[in-house]
Amino acid sequence: MVQIPKPPTPASAAVGSVPTSADVARLAGVSRATVSYVLNNTSAVRISEPTRRRVHEAAKELGYVPHAAARSLRAGHSRMVLMPAPTIPVGPLYSQFLSDLQGALGRLDYTVVQYGAVGTHGDEAARAWAELRPVAVLVPGSGLGPQGVAVLKRSGARAVVTLGPETVEGAHALLMDHTAVGRAAAAHLRARGRSRIGVVVPAEPGLEVFSRPRLHGVRHAVHGTGGTGATVIELPLAYDEDDAARLAARWRGLGLDAVFAYNDEYAMLLMRALMDAGVDIPGDTAVIGADDLMLGRLLRPRLSTVHIDLPSGRDLAELVDRAVRDPAAPPERREVLGATVVPRESS
Amino acid sequence: MVQIPKPPTPASAAVGSVPTSADVARLAGVSRATVSYVLNNTSAVRISEPTRRRVHEAAKELGYVPHAAARSLRAGHSRMVLMPAPTIPVGPLYSQFLSDLQGALGRLDYTVVQYGAVGTHGDEAARAWAELRPVAVLVPGSGLGPQGVAVLKRSGARAVVTLGPETVEGAHALLMDHTAVGRAAAAHLRARGRSRIGVVVPAEPGLEVFSRPRLHGVRHAVHGTGGTGATVIELPLAYDEDDAARLAARWRGLGLDAVFAYNDEYAMLLMRALMDAGVDIPGDTAVIGADDLMLGRLLRPRLSTVHIDLPSGRDLAELVDRAVRDPAAPPERREVLGATVVPRESS
Repeated sequence: MVQIPKPPTPASAAVGSVPTSADVARLAGVSRATVSYVLNNTSAVRISEPTRRRVHEAAKELGYVPHAAARSLRAGHSRMVLMPAPTIPVGPLYSQFLSDLQGALGRLDYTVVQYGAVGTHGDEAARAWAELRPVAVLVPGSGLGPQGVAVLKRSGARAVVTLGPETVEGAHALLMDHTAVGRAAAAHLRARGRSRIGVVVPAEPGLEVFSRPRLHGVRHAVHGTGGTGATVIELPLAYDEDDAARLAARWRGLGLDAVFAYNDEYAMLLMRALMDAGVDIPGDTAVIGADDLMLGRLLRPRLSTVHIDLPSGRDLAELVDRAVRDPAAPPERREVLGATVVPRESS
Repeated sequence: MVQIPKPPTPASAAVGSVPTSADVARLAGVSRATVSYVLNNTSAVRISEPTRRRVHEAAKELGYVPHAAARSLRAGHSRMVLMPAPTIPVGPLYSQFLSDLQGALGRLDYTVVQYGAVGTHGDEAARAWAELRPVAVLVPGSGLGPQGVAVLKRSGARAVVTLGPETVEGAHALLMDHTAVGRAAAAHLRARGRSRIGVVVPAEPGLEVFSRPRLHGVRHAVHGTGGTGATVIELPLAYDEDDAARLAARWRGLGLDAVFAYNDEYAMLLMRALMDAGVDIPGDTAVIGADDLMLGRLLRPRLSTVHIDLPSGRDLAELVDRAVRDPAAPPERREVLGATVVPRESS
């Protein structure tokens, strides 16, 4: 059988050298500026339909793709919204929120880039983010300080928005006040007549940013109401069956009649260990989680929980867009976390 | 009280205009090239320690941060590894894997950028990725074709690596063969003497890329062994209590003695609905999930599962690095998914 060699195509001929807009201009017989106007859809310059077509065809033939960084260097700004990837394990609720937010920013024509800066923190990380010259930065968690915000703004970021427990000078703040979660859980347990309340604090590193304010919220709700003999006890717990069994084994000695288990996953872990140790739920101990995950409804007894309302991705995307359009506006500050108890059978 | 106006600082004086390397050069009394050599740590050029110090001090005073895109434009390549964000909901197992991989690439000095391209697919998405000029692209899932790979390579990507069920021409392939998960589950159920096997197929869009090959694996294991009267029935199921209750209500009519429930989360949902409907597990119906999540060990009966081995983030990061260093090497193809049954009480 005779093999017929294929003629070289423009694509295979170009292997090894990246086609540039100059190549496109040469093939189309136009200037580089015209190529740029056509491919970036600039409406400010009138270019005839046949010329446009010739440029598009030449770009297609050569396999030319515009260079986003070069374009933003020329334009002096980008449409890149940078979201540093959270350095802590996030649950399904927060993952869904981040994904909605990214979708909403995408529909407003921003390019959302998640950037995992491993091993850097706070203001040092801000320098690494600034190198990417984003038009806006959305920072989940805590750690960024006023200096980091200033670095980002000097590098051209029109808006810095933090998502976390506190405000940072110079940045817009979407305040997520997790003390509200603890307050709601404690108020529910007190209303059920419970007075010796354990609060699970995960041993896993990185979760303190949520667990500390939740614990603080419980203390505040219990002691703020006069403190009629009620107590709050902190219960460190690793997300692991053995640790849960150890805690369950010394449960009766703790004399607790209720526990706020940080979230639904830790609640499932602890509730199982308590039941295996013969503790009656909710008779001996009332249990409440947080996050309102599906799994809580599947447990027996059904798990009481604190439902957490996060803002819609669309609302937040609009806030970012407003901030980008008006970089001189004073920082906005919004409480975005709602906490509502969903009472079920475990409390 | 008299307010003393603060003297303007270099930082506040620079507000509104982004400091450039030319500003740094002027303040330090050196050339722009020297600024670039010093701030990019170029070892090719000898620059005296006092000059280096002067440049660093000037950069600090002005709050100058290098521009990553400008630097990679000059260098002709970047250290950016682009990972398109998965468009489907990923479970905790896969999230952990992605996070490990990002960490490992970061330690090899790559900048890992996750890019959520909303509303574009396959080769069209590849054009959007190419605009960012990454040095390597790691594509989870399926949809990218040989044309998309070619676009990425022409734009300068030295390595394109797919993570998914099939190989794509021109790209390195980390093959995740989910039929192995179905085969393992089915072999276990057959060994337990079960012959009428239901297979849960999630109704949620986007999961077909996993659920189809898992179903196919069950069929293959059951019918490939001679087909001694065994049957496989597909069971669409939404991740929702009502849908699970409906399926449970017609369970006895289906005459199944076993079910592979797609993963542990769907298994938990279905097992609860079956138990509420009076179906004995595993007496009437054996149940097996997949992913080996903690929750399976907390259920009663304890859930049997298929443990899935994903490769280590470090191994994959090293593969990416090798591919970047030797872009002309022929595409590697590696099977990276291992499946092992963990028998517990539910089967």
